[in-house]
Amino acid sequence: MADQYAQSGGDNRPAGIPAIRWEEPPEGPVLVLLDQTRLPAEEVELVCTDASVLVEAIRSLAVRGAPLLGIAGAYGVALAAARGFDVDEAATALAGARPTAVNLSVGVRRARSAYRAELARSGEPGQGARAALAAARQLHQEDAEASVRMAGHGLALLDELLPGGGQRILTHCNTGSLVSGGEGTAFAVALAAHRAGRLRRLWVDETRPLLQGARLTAYEAARSDMAYTLLTDSAAGSLFAAGEVDAVLIGADRIAADGSVANKVGSYPLAVLARYHHVPFIVVAPVTTVDPDTPNGASIEVEQRPGFEVTEVAAPQVPVTGAGGGIPVAPLGTQAYNPAFDVTPPELVTAIVTEEGVVSPVTAEGLAELCGRSRPVTGGFGES
Amino acid sequence: MADQYAQSGGDNRPAGIPAIRWEEPPEGPVLVLLDQTRLPAEEVELVCTDASVLVEAIRSLAVRGAPLLGIAGAYGVALAAARGFDVDEAATALAGARPTAVNLSVGVRRARSAYRAELARSGEPGQGARAALAAARQLHQEDAEASVRMAGHGLALLDELLPGGGQRILTHCNTGSLVSGGEGTAFAVALAAHRAGRLRRLWVDETRPLLQGARLTAYEAARSDMAYTLLTDSAAGSLFAAGEVDAVLIGADRIAADGSVANKVGSYPLAVLARYHHVPFIVVAPVTTVDPDTPNGASIEVEQRPGFEVTEVAAPQVPVTGAGGGIPVAPLGTQAYNPAFDVTPPELVTAIVTEEGVVSPVTAEGLAELCGRSRPVTGGFGES
Repeated sequence: MADQYAQSGGDNRPAGIPAIRWEEPPEGPVLVLLDQTRLPAEEVELVCTDASVLVEAIRSLAVRGAPLLGIAGAYGVALAAARGFDVDEAATALAGARPTAVNLSVGVRRARSAYRAELARSGEPGQGARAALAAARQLHQEDAEASVRMAGHGLALLDELLPGGGQRILTHCNTGSLVSGGEGTAFAVALAAHRAGRLRRLWVDETRPLLQGARLTAYEAARSDMAYTLLTDSAAGSLFAAGEVDAVLIGADRIAADGSVANKVGSYPLAVLARYHHVPFIVVAPVTTVDPDTPNGASIEVEQRPGFEVTEVAAPQVPVTGAGGGIPVAPLGTQAYNPAFDVTPPELVTAIVTEEGVVSPVTAEGLAELCGRSRPVTGGFGES
Repeated sequence: MADQYAQSGGDNRPAGIPAIRWEEPPEGPVLVLLDQTRLPAEEVELVCTDASVLVEAIRSLAVRGAPLLGIAGAYGVALAAARGFDVDEAATALAGARPTAVNLSVGVRRARSAYRAELARSGEPGQGARAALAAARQLHQEDAEASVRMAGHGLALLDELLPGGGQRILTHCNTGSLVSGGEGTAFAVALAAHRAGRLRRLWVDETRPLLQGARLTAYEAARSDMAYTLLTDSAAGSLFAAGEVDAVLIGADRIAADGSVANKVGSYPLAVLARYHHVPFIVVAPVTTVDPDTPNGASIEVEQRPGFEVTEVAAPQVPVTGAGGGIPVAPLGTQAYNPAFDVTPPELVTAIVTEEGVVSPVTAEGLAELCGRSRPVTGGFGES
């Protein structure tokens, strides 16, 4: 087991720098991650030579974002198999690296099932390893394809809502290639508008407390040569008032059966502002985000995060002094209210864009119809 | 000229630690400031022995906040006069320390006029110095009295709107004793509710980008033994949605003749959220904040601040690396939209509370009537 950091030749890279990739150098297969904890200050790759290094990378948030975690988990199982480690042990460690990330365990299960099935059939661990890798690559590919289809549907919707072009789009948190096997969800739609020459400006909310907008979305926008401007989350109000926002595009962490959308805290105030200013509020997410077992917004449990994310500011490149590993900005002992997500009711959502199509207006019936239409993107991983 | 830092005996202080005070030790008069750049990490006093030290303190934001700057400017003139420095030179330097702070030059003019008038009358510079000090003390006292009256009117309004007590009040930015000769504006009302046993919780917006809520309002709330909780600005949406906010109380930087309120960026989104959730949105400010020469919100010029306040985070106690003196959090070259203020239209303001009474509903007529009723708080400083 070993890991190594390699400074990338940033300027020679394509704009779509991959957050994750599988490589097979002569010394054996490796999983290469873009270390997201060091963005945007440094583009550093983290090379995982076995699953335990990947587990650590997941825990430290070097790799993050729901779809990407699923892909990473699947590749991690393939890596353990290819390197001859105990596959079940690796799978258990990977699935438990972030217990609340459902995509992670789904990806792990999918690669492990492929491994087991092939091992049972051929009796050859090498064949099993190849099957696990094929499963990981398929998941990766499916996610990339879902991004492309979401971008297509989203672009068509934008063109319908804002036919004149010159679109000024506001987004929140991070929804691009850093969280996806492809180009992401909401960000992928903005990128499609950019490539089609219709995006005038991407307004990027900094997204307190962890600044994913400032750190990651601004990085993705810069890499894509988009015209973008960063702002504090509450400065969005001034943009709406000045008529500078034509649409809001956000992702989703979970969508209830009634169309209520749980997403990064700060999404709901944008939805209220958008309604007040008659601006479309559009959610972009794969159909796997829709949870038919969650009937409505009230039944979505919202994770409360530690207060130190608010009472301290994190800056990885400076010495830390606070209890939470950051720099204290509030008086010692200050209590903070720090929900990770908020919930936007369906009546404030103009449309939900998925890889299977668009639901607008957002109703339980429309959502159910669209989900019923979908092929099972993460299917085929039963414990066979 | 000399300055010195003295660590205060923090624990023995009253809760209402003064942001500014005049002292006359045997070695000569001094102006003692609480250094706000070092809060909340340290309570350090900055002792000004002449106006040039005060000018530096104003520039570095060791002393800040519109009413407090006026008081500081007046004391600065008195200090120059008492120490035998050139009063006109000191006045010019003080008034220009922050050119956009109108209160600062008003305070300077008031003390200088008193000095000149007394000098002309008596021919005694010592008499002139005493007159300047008396003018500064009077301004200080008037501001403290205005706080008390705003607090009284605001408390009565809260009791009328929320008769049951158990008030949960949300505030934004910093409006307490750190910006005032007394206990401030919106914060003074919350403090009055606390002392009357009616405040259940003060919700404190952190107030990006400069975190005045986290750094200063949390400090003031802690000093006053209030039950308070800090939150990121956009987490306020979740509180409204959960029914956890009974009223919003904010200050104002300028109020137009039609009742439009310019205040710290982030105030307007709160007003929209408050309206959507049928929660009172209350502005507390002295009548001098009302500018009859500004007809409406559109005619309020909003200061755009440097982008580095958003692209970097400031933490005075750690080594700085960014161009703006902070720690970079966004990619190099990132452009930021950073308005200092936003404008809330009168139809979203439930009431404006001043020392002269309450305007509700907010109309141009109501505001004009109340301003006509007011005595000139900063009057008596003509160039006589």
